[in-house]
Amino acid sequence: MTEYILQLLEQKNYIKIKSTVKDIIPPDLAALLESLEPRDITLIFRLLPKELAAETFTYMDSDTQMHLISGFSDKELREMFDEIFVDDTVDIIEEMPANVVARILKNSDLETRKQINTILNYPADSAGSLMTTEYVYLHRDMTSKDALDWIRKVGVVKETIYTCYVTESRKLIGYVTILDLVTADEDTVIESIMDTNVISVNTHEDREIVAKKFSKYDFLAMPVVDNENRIVGIITFDDVLDVIQEENEEDFSKMAAMQPTEGSYFKTPVLIHVKNRILWLLVLMLSATITGTLLTKYEESFQTIPLLVSFIPMLMSTAGNCGSQSSTTVIRGLATEEIQFKDYFKVAFKEFRISIVVSLILSLTNSLRILVMYKDFRLSAVIFLSLIGIIIIAKFVGCTLPLLAKKFKIDPAIMANPLISTILDTCSMLIYFQIATLIFSELR
Amino acid sequence: MTEYILQLLEQKNYIKIKSTVKDIIPPDLAALLESLEPRDITLIFRLLPKELAAETFTYMDSDTQMHLISGFSDKELREMFDEIFVDDTVDIIEEMPANVVARILKNSDLETRKQINTILNYPADSAGSLMTTEYVYLHRDMTSKDALDWIRKVGVVKETIYTCYVTESRKLIGYVTILDLVTADEDTVIESIMDTNVISVNTHEDREIVAKKFSKYDFLAMPVVDNENRIVGIITFDDVLDVIQEENEEDFSKMAAMQPTEGSYFKTPVLIHVKNRILWLLVLMLSATITGTLLTKYEESFQTIPLLVSFIPMLMSTAGNCGSQSSTTVIRGLATEEIQFKDYFKVAFKEFRISIVVSLILSLTNSLRILVMYKDFRLSAVIFLSLIGIIIIAKFVGCTLPLLAKKFKIDPAIMANPLISTILDTCSMLIYFQIATLIFSELR
Repeated sequence: MTEYILQLLEQKNYIKIKSTVKDIIPPDLAALLESLEPRDITLIFRLLPKELAAETFTYMDSDTQMHLISGFSDKELREMFDEIFVDDTVDIIEEMPANVVARILKNSDLETRKQINTILNYPADSAGSLMTTEYVYLHRDMTSKDALDWIRKVGVVKETIYTCYVTESRKLIGYVTILDLVTADEDTVIESIMDTNVISVNTHEDREIVAKKFSKYDFLAMPVVDNENRIVGIITFDDVLDVIQEENEEDFSKMAAMQPTEGSYFKTPVLIHVKNRILWLLVLMLSATITGTLLTKYEESFQTIPLLVSFIPMLMSTAGNCGSQSSTTVIRGLATEEIQFKDYFKVAFKEFRISIVVSLILSLTNSLRILVMYKDFRLSAVIFLSLIGIIIIAKFVGCTLPLLAKKFKIDPAIMANPLISTILDTCSMLIYFQIATLIFSELR
Repeated sequence: MTEYILQLLEQKNYIKIKSTVKDIIPPDLAALLESLEPRDITLIFRLLPKELAAETFTYMDSDTQMHLISGFSDKELREMFDEIFVDDTVDIIEEMPANVVARILKNSDLETRKQINTILNYPADSAGSLMTTEYVYLHRDMTSKDALDWIRKVGVVKETIYTCYVTESRKLIGYVTILDLVTADEDTVIESIMDTNVISVNTHEDREIVAKKFSKYDFLAMPVVDNENRIVGIITFDDVLDVIQEENEEDFSKMAAMQPTEGSYFKTPVLIHVKNRILWLLVLMLSATITGTLLTKYEESFQTIPLLVSFIPMLMSTAGNCGSQSSTTVIRGLATEEIQFKDYFKVAFKEFRISIVVSLILSLTNSLRILVMYKDFRLSAVIFLSLIGIIIIAKFVGCTLPLLAKKFKIDPAIMANPLISTILDTCSMLIYFQIATLIFSELR
């Protein structure tokens, strides 16, 4: 497609370009335009019908948006933002430098400007910052016909009209879906068909809670209310999809000992990547020296039996892997709310039983291998017993720490693989050398 | 709430129970019922209005569903499944033992039974298995009024009527939203307002691709077509929300070296948990013995300078952490499609620059600490150089392996923390002892 457009651009066949691009879906069109030269983007963008141009604009990355805005006259800017939904405008504004924001706000009408500012003032990650202030509200005394006429008048500029909220002095008292309105007789009063069981969120609710409510209730949209139960906006499911993905990405980062990187991998500068990664690396590196210091205590042991050293990597990695299996399972269980702190003993007992079976399989495999390779029964026994002890401890620590973190209101995700591994390294070396000293009498 | 209901149950005040529970939202009601005794669940369930009962049923776990079904007469069973959407029925059936499935199918009408079977025959994880066969279709020659009348007639049993599909001999030729219909004049012909730019998925498309299309286009529903572009069903956004969560959970499991556990942590038996965890543990444990075998080659080195052993945990854990930071970043970039195989050199160069800065900070910190603690310049130099080499290799391996996996059509998620760490353990020990032998002349 890109090549075809480039060819038309070369031929200056603008009529053909216009008729080709106007049938492309906005997200695809945005991707197509971004692949062109900046000069050509502006050129083609001006050929688009106003509505398509505005919607395509919302799908572009902020660099391209900024490039386009810088070329717009104030009139063009105003016309475009008139077509864009307020919550999308806010998303765009949040990415722009201050002088561009000022230009956008100057060219919005008073009402829109007020709406943008309202949304911008809510704390990041709150329901307030996610919501749009454009929704359809009805009065309880309206008839179904009144309601549909009202939707015809205002609905087209509202982001979702599928659920309409019934208010009384701005307080939320019920909702009707457009299906209710369409299927009801013309003179049915809203009050008689509205559902008064409204699930809403407070403006200050965390966006993670909002996402959970959406998943639980399968809503298309959810009303946002202030402390007096007055409706101030709605959150739509498409914004929630983005929140769920972002929250998951954050957890993936944390579980690999990184602070989450916001935005694009390629566009984030090297030093910001370093900043997001270095703190945990330093902490974990220095914690690992504790295990090192512990090992210096057993110097004589591995001067006497140097073979003991060769099992260190296997024991430490098995401890780490067993521990992170348990911690990841518990962390995800906490995130999806299947596991709660009160389940601690149930979880610990389950992990204990798992660790018994797992440790028997692993230690039998390994001690048999050692018996065959080294023909040393004592060595084989040391590894057998150490693995059993290490795996039981690993699964215990792995399920305990995330639950403790949760209890003390720390994000359990930081108790993931890297931190657990470092803690378990120390435990496993302690167990290993204690058992070795016990069995090899020459080490005493 | 549970206590209040229990109290009413004791008083046998069924009228009060009936009026209380009928205002509770289905997902909440399902949770409430599940917390009661089996006998009481059946009792209260029978008090519910038919529609509420059916919807609540879909939110229950399969044990409770099975308990309820076993108590139903055939008539009750039929009445309930008449109220449940076909795709929910399929979800329920997939969890039930064969004799219960047979009973449900026997009590569905012919049409429903055909629909259920159609869905059940699509491969798991395909668009076909996600879809519902209940959707609203219109003809291009209908007027807006005809269409609304038709929706009034059929819409209430369709899972979503917000998007209606226009078909011609079952081929999908366009769509209109209910907003288009409501805002159009009564005699407007569908053909003139329908949008012919329909994004659809094929029945055999993978559900991950379906989820990506939903996130990209912000759809409420997407039509599913067969190879001849005939519409066979629709997928709604609520099913996609579940898919996205499940896919993420799968990735979390794989990245902690586990096969994904389907369903509840608590309900999955211990031996299934063991089965999902043991394979990777065995593979990783045996791979770690390679590092061990390598260490036996340097036995003389640590008999001469036993202090060298104490740095092994710190070096291995730093290598693992640096590597998993890079691999997690690349794996997630691949999952969200920001990173592709063709970006390999861009990614490798970026990670190389990050590793230069990170390695300088970490090795300076650590070698200074060693200089102060042990006053040994050569030891400090060994650690300085080893860390630099190890971190550069770690970030290189960490970004390369997931991309190679992708290239060879292996799931990149298995190249996560545990496997990367094990590979890097060997690399880091090789670098460490090579540098140590170079600097400490007595080791040669």
